[in-house]
Amino acid sequence: MAKGKRVKRIGILTGGGDCPGLNAVIRGVTKPAHDNGLSVLGILDGFEGLVEARGKELYNKDVSGILAQGGTILGSSNKGDPFHWPENVEGKIKIVDRSEQALRNYEAWGLDALIAIGGDGTMHIAHKLSQMGMNVVGVPKTIDNDLQATDVTFGHDSAVFVVTEAIDRLHTTASSHHRVMVIETMGRYAGWIALHGGLAGGADILLLPEFPFEWDKVYEKVMQRHMMGKRFSIVCVAEGAKPKGGDLVVRAKDKKRTDPIQLGGIGELVAKKITENTGLETRYTILGHLQRGGSPTPYDRILSTKFGTYAIHLALKKRFGRMAALKGSEITSVKIEDAIAKQKLVTADNQGVQAALAVGISFGVEF
Amino acid sequence: MAKGKRVKRIGILTGGGDCPGLNAVIRGVTKPAHDNGLSVLGILDGFEGLVEARGKELYNKDVSGILAQGGTILGSSNKGDPFHWPENVEGKIKIVDRSEQALRNYEAWGLDALIAIGGDGTMHIAHKLSQMGMNVVGVPKTIDNDLQATDVTFGHDSAVFVVTEAIDRLHTTASSHHRVMVIETMGRYAGWIALHGGLAGGADILLLPEFPFEWDKVYEKVMQRHMMGKRFSIVCVAEGAKPKGGDLVVRAKDKKRTDPIQLGGIGELVAKKITENTGLETRYTILGHLQRGGSPTPYDRILSTKFGTYAIHLALKKRFGRMAALKGSEITSVKIEDAIAKQKLVTADNQGVQAALAVGISFGVEF
Amino acid sequence: MAKGKRVKRIGILTGGGDCPGLNAVIRGVTKPAHDNGLSVLGILDGFEGLVEARGKELYNKDVSGILAQGGTILGSSNKGDPFHWPENVEGKIKIVDRSEQALRNYEAWGLDALIAIGGDGTMHIAHKLSQMGMNVVGVPKTIDNDLQATDVTFGHDSAVFVVTEAIDRLHTTASSHHRVMVIETMGRYAGWIALHGGLAGGADILLLPEFPFEWDKVYEKVMQRHMMGKRFSIVCVAEGAKPKGGDLVVRAKDKKRTDPIQLGGIGELVAKKITENTGLETRYTILGHLQRGGSPTPYDRILSTKFGTYAIHLALKKRFGRMAALKGSEITSVKIEDAIAKQKLVTADNQGVQAALAVGISFGVEF
Amino acid sequence: MAKGKRVKRIGILTGGGDCPGLNAVIRGVTKPAHDNGLSVLGILDGFEGLVEARGKELYNKDVSGILAQGGTILGSSNKGDPFHWPENVEGKIKIVDRSEQALRNYEAWGLDALIAIGGDGTMHIAHKLSQMGMNVVGVPKTIDNDLQATDVTFGHDSAVFVVTEAIDRLHTTASSHHRVMVIETMGRYAGWIALHGGLAGGADILLLPEFPFEWDKVYEKVMQRHMMGKRFSIVCVAEGAKPKGGDLVVRAKDKKRTDPIQLGGIGELVAKKITENTGLETRYTILGHLQRGGSPTPYDRILSTKFGTYAIHLALKKRFGRMAALKGSEITSVKIEDAIAKQKLVTADNQGVQAALAVGISFGVEF
Repeated sequence: MAKGKRVKRIGILTGGGDCPGLNAVIRGVTKPAHDNGLSVLGILDGFEGLVEARGKELYNKDVSGILAQGGTILGSSNKGDPFHWPENVEGKIKIVDRSEQALRNYEAWGLDALIAIGGDGTMHIAHKLSQMGMNVVGVPKTIDNDLQATDVTFGHDSAVFVVTEAIDRLHTTASSHHRVMVIETMGRYAGWIALHGGLAGGADILLLPEFPFEWDKVYEKVMQRHMMGKRFSIVCVAEGAKPKGGDLVVRAKDKKRTDPIQLGGIGELVAKKITENTGLETRYTILGHLQRGGSPTPYDRILSTKFGTYAIHLALKKRFGRMAALKGSEITSVKIEDAIAKQKLVTADNQGVQAALAVGISFGVEF
Repeated sequence: MAKGKRVKRIGILTGGGDCPGLNAVIRGVTKPAHDNGLSVLGILDGFEGLVEARGKELYNKDVSGILAQGGTILGSSNKGDPFHWPENVEGKIKIVDRSEQALRNYEAWGLDALIAIGGDGTMHIAHKLSQMGMNVVGVPKTIDNDLQATDVTFGHDSAVFVVTEAIDRLHTTASSHHRVMVIETMGRYAGWIALHGGLAGGADILLLPEFPFEWDKVYEKVMQRHMMGKRFSIVCVAEGAKPKGGDLVVRAKDKKRTDPIQLGGIGELVAKKITENTGLETRYTILGHLQRGGSPTPYDRILSTKFGTYAIHLALKKRFGRMAALKGSEITSVKIEDAIAKQKLVTADNQGVQAALAVGISFGVEF
Repeated sequence: MAKGKRVKRIGILTGGGDCPGLNAVIRGVTKPAHDNGLSVLGILDGFEGLVEARGKELYNKDVSGILAQGGTILGSSNKGDPFHWPENVEGKIKIVDRSEQALRNYEAWGLDALIAIGGDGTMHIAHKLSQMGMNVVGVPKTIDNDLQATDVTFGHDSAVFVVTEAIDRLHTTASSHHRVMVIETMGRYAGWIALHGGLAGGADILLLPEFPFEWDKVYEKVMQRHMMGKRFSIVCVAEGAKPKGGDLVVRAKDKKRTDPIQLGGIGELVAKKITENTGLETRYTILGHLQRGGSPTPYDRILSTKFGTYAIHLALKKRFGRMAALKGSEITSVKIEDAIAKQKLVTADNQGVQAALAVGISFGVEF
Repeated sequence: MAKGKRVKRIGILTGGGDCPGLNAVIRGVTKPAHDNGLSVLGILDGFEGLVEARGKELYNKDVSGILAQGGTILGSSNKGDPFHWPENVEGKIKIVDRSEQALRNYEAWGLDALIAIGGDGTMHIAHKLSQMGMNVVGVPKTIDNDLQATDVTFGHDSAVFVVTEAIDRLHTTASSHHRVMVIETMGRYAGWIALHGGLAGGADILLLPEFPFEWDKVYEKVMQRHMMGKRFSIVCVAEGAKPKGGDLVVRAKDKKRTDPIQLGGIGELVAKKITENTGLETRYTILGHLQRGGSPTPYDRILSTKFGTYAIHLALKKRFGRMAALKGSEITSVKIEDAIAKQKLVTADNQGVQAALAVGISFGVEF
């Protein structure tokens, strides 16, 4: 866009996995955009829509009533990286670079800026498109909350809500019988969901990807509670947790799965091993995509709305190449290039971990 | 108890698996008992406590505030059948008959009647104890809702609530991507939870133990929806569902598990097969004991309270050997011996099944 | 419609107040209608749309995803009685009969049948239109559950859910302080919502329209609990409850309000009087339309779906002039003319009332 | 306590109004206290128990399972200021200073430190006791979130959750009819609950104590939406909101109430005036103490647990006279004397207000 030209038309897309709050961001962008005389193009199915030129105008009526809805009205896709685009060339899938096409569509649509909502993958693409001359503003999104560049990402609170509610339910039924309950949460590399859900739900053992655990420590904690007359133990395990020296127990969805254990996942494995090694009846629950679904919590709706309205503010000020971020209780912005690839993992000195230890939660490992 | 003698002291126990509403029944029995000048003995851990003489007096303060709590304040146990009691005789586990001991404890405690809350197993034992001269009143309990003798059992509505809420969540996340979501519910022999949860949640395919399904019909329905442009399909499968001619895919908890499939359960198997046969991304959720936990729904609290107060009414009227039952909108009673062993299964002409078919839900089979 | 002619096109409207489950009925009608080759016209804003010829075609996509939504996608109206239609004639509002116009629109639209979802008022109108030759099928609707012709109406369980959840919340906060909490529910003439909500929530005092209460009995119960060391009492009062010999305390919305008390409603009055007469701190909550809003409970979604699919079944069988009804656990039908004007009120011998008394709940009156 | 002496015994009390998360703090203090070899005395009913020497030992079993419970197991009281103690002296209530008695009890109990959980009033008392030589550690608590010294207080997120859920419900029912819904929230001086609840629920008009509103602006916004074809408007009003130049409409509980308006509160007044001035049907809901009740949200449980474990950390380090506080995402501490009397009010430049304005919410006033 020419220097001095006002921003008059923006595109918006949601990339990567689903996350409660996406619609609230879309609404938070669209309403003030129209108030400021902009038009808004909703690009469908993430970057797929950008490459394939699929979009629709977003009017205020389109975003009315979506604040409380889970999912994204624009659709999403995990596959659409314009720089690594799978294309059927003479019967074979070939990976090609379609970023030029993306840029052409951006221009053909007459966009002055693109607001890209997504996680690390989305921000990488956004940054590269930015370097090609596209005016991009980022909004960070991940239920895992593992972005270094922002204190909190929307969707995380909602995921933690689902985990906590589940642990609350398991508490009552576990306490009627002498039982161990295992609950598997999302979190392949970062254990924030399991940490926060387990802390809020009052789990007894938390197994996180960051802290490879010792089986004996798990059995010990369970038996210790049993000996003290506690009727139950609750183990909250992130899908990416693994025993010390052990391999990640991958879900059936992964093609590379060659596990000798032949079990559904770490949750089932933990349940099986506890039964075998303690003799206690053990049951497991796999939350799966429940953690990505449903209406966002009020916390996430507010954060999403603030992120959305801040993104349009950045666009109007032509502060391109930046991503909205929460620092303390203020929304601010960081350079997208500074934001990417800095993952925030759970560390032993984290106050949440310390609080968990203080109330007697075991991480299956000595710190 | 001698003829003409008034009922002055009752025992109460909760047998079998956990079920939301147990505490509401205990409260519904205890409060009016005291009002009528009776004393109440809470027998701990089901029939285990009856054989091992473990009990505690229940006063009004003990049942105050428990109406909304899941679980049972008396504890429960799946193991304690006095007629088939596992005993360590010279280092070996031997099955012995301890029913005489149960009767002696009943008498030693000075009980005039026993209120036994439980499912089919509990009612069988109750009936046999009844034949030995114990004054028993039954209260039916099963989240599966598979007792012929009563229209509805408490706990079922709560279990259906959990399933429905989960399907609601999956709907939003499924609709953002092109996906199939599989949700596995309880129900080893009777499919009521999956039927009602799936009907209320708006699932697309229901797989029930009563209707062995055809894999092709499942793939077909999923593909048909995909072709129509629907972004997702939701499959609700009871843990006891099985393909035509196939075996039950048993959970890891079962000792007899010798499955070649080596998967966690039917939910995971269905997800795996759909992915393989349709190419669509599929995810699964296993609710497990979430369905037994948490605060009972208002419906279950009301039904439980009515059952409890009706049971004490039966005891005061010395209508022993009977079980409270719901017929239409009235609580009434049936003979325990008539109630047992008549399982209520889902049939094709059930109005719920018919309504499901009418709104386009597939059962993976032609009726 | 001519004898022997098949039903090919139906209209559907929702009359009267809002009620969770309306959309589930609309979906339950529309999906099987299309499966049976019918077309469906959605008539907007109840009978208003019938008189003013406002409607839209309903396709399957229109009812996809509405099962779990509160409200009605067709809109509703309390005002539109074709037989008593307010019309602006030369600057004055005159009440005229527009039923002929309604009939003409019905015919002009080519409707073979009309499915009218509503309460007593709607059924009255439906009956009169029926007598004029319109083919009407009724579906009963009232959160108050006060129709004699059906055991249960959808929406009631959802309203009770809201009340119960509110009482649950009040319990925890009330128990921290020494306090009386008053909660006002809907129910101007019938007290079912307060009865069932209060029973499920464990209220201490229930004040229903059917049982004019004595102030002294209310104070007495509250003081008795206070003396026993209970930290709180919860009073659940239906908006139509009134003291013996007293007048109904009407809400501000009523034009005829000439109350000397000048208070918002009976809830506030009860709170005020308890404070004045017992010296105990009292707080009140007025739920208002929360009871009509939100997603229907699973129970209501199932009942609504069954009602909807049964209604289309009645239409196809040309069983006009009938209304779907629940009897025990079966959906059946009754003549609309038999259904109307038979209100079902709470009576002292109702099992719910008896159960409430048995667990120590006071109705503020001696039975 | 003598210099160099280790902290071996602590007291804990909860002062002021009820707040979800209090039990989580008590648990967060008690568990690590025992782990560190301390004993814990629970002082009952806030400062009342300190003056009247009412307390009970808190063991781990007492705090087991209370994490998710609303209310406070220690009881609370609004009245017990030791420095302004109402005492019956010869038949008259006289205000006396009983702080010396409080100090004597503290010493007689052998306490080395007192953890006081409460709001501004509690912190004032804590500070004065601190000046008398008591070792006090404060934990901030207010659902209103109006303390300057900490970014967030626990309980606020839970209160906002209740308001948001209520607005969600009202949305569905409002949209079926042409209606205005008014919802009154807590917040006498600070409007954070209404702001955050309204922002998360998607209200159309927010009336806060900080921004005296103009009636005309309210009617205008409602009519403007009506003209645009919107079927409803939702007005979220804090109990302390007032029109420009108008008086606070106080609730009936206030003795000084001399209002000419004779209505229940601002919620009812707003509803009445909108009806009179726009002709639109208006309904209102008064949430009252629902906002203080129920299980705390996961966010509040985590924050409470962190505050509790941090408080015991402060006590062990003998950092007395300090209060735990959240700054950004870290728990830290501030001097109690610096914390008190600095109220945090909503200002026009707050990002939440700005986001609300950006999505089209009116505050009934021009900024």
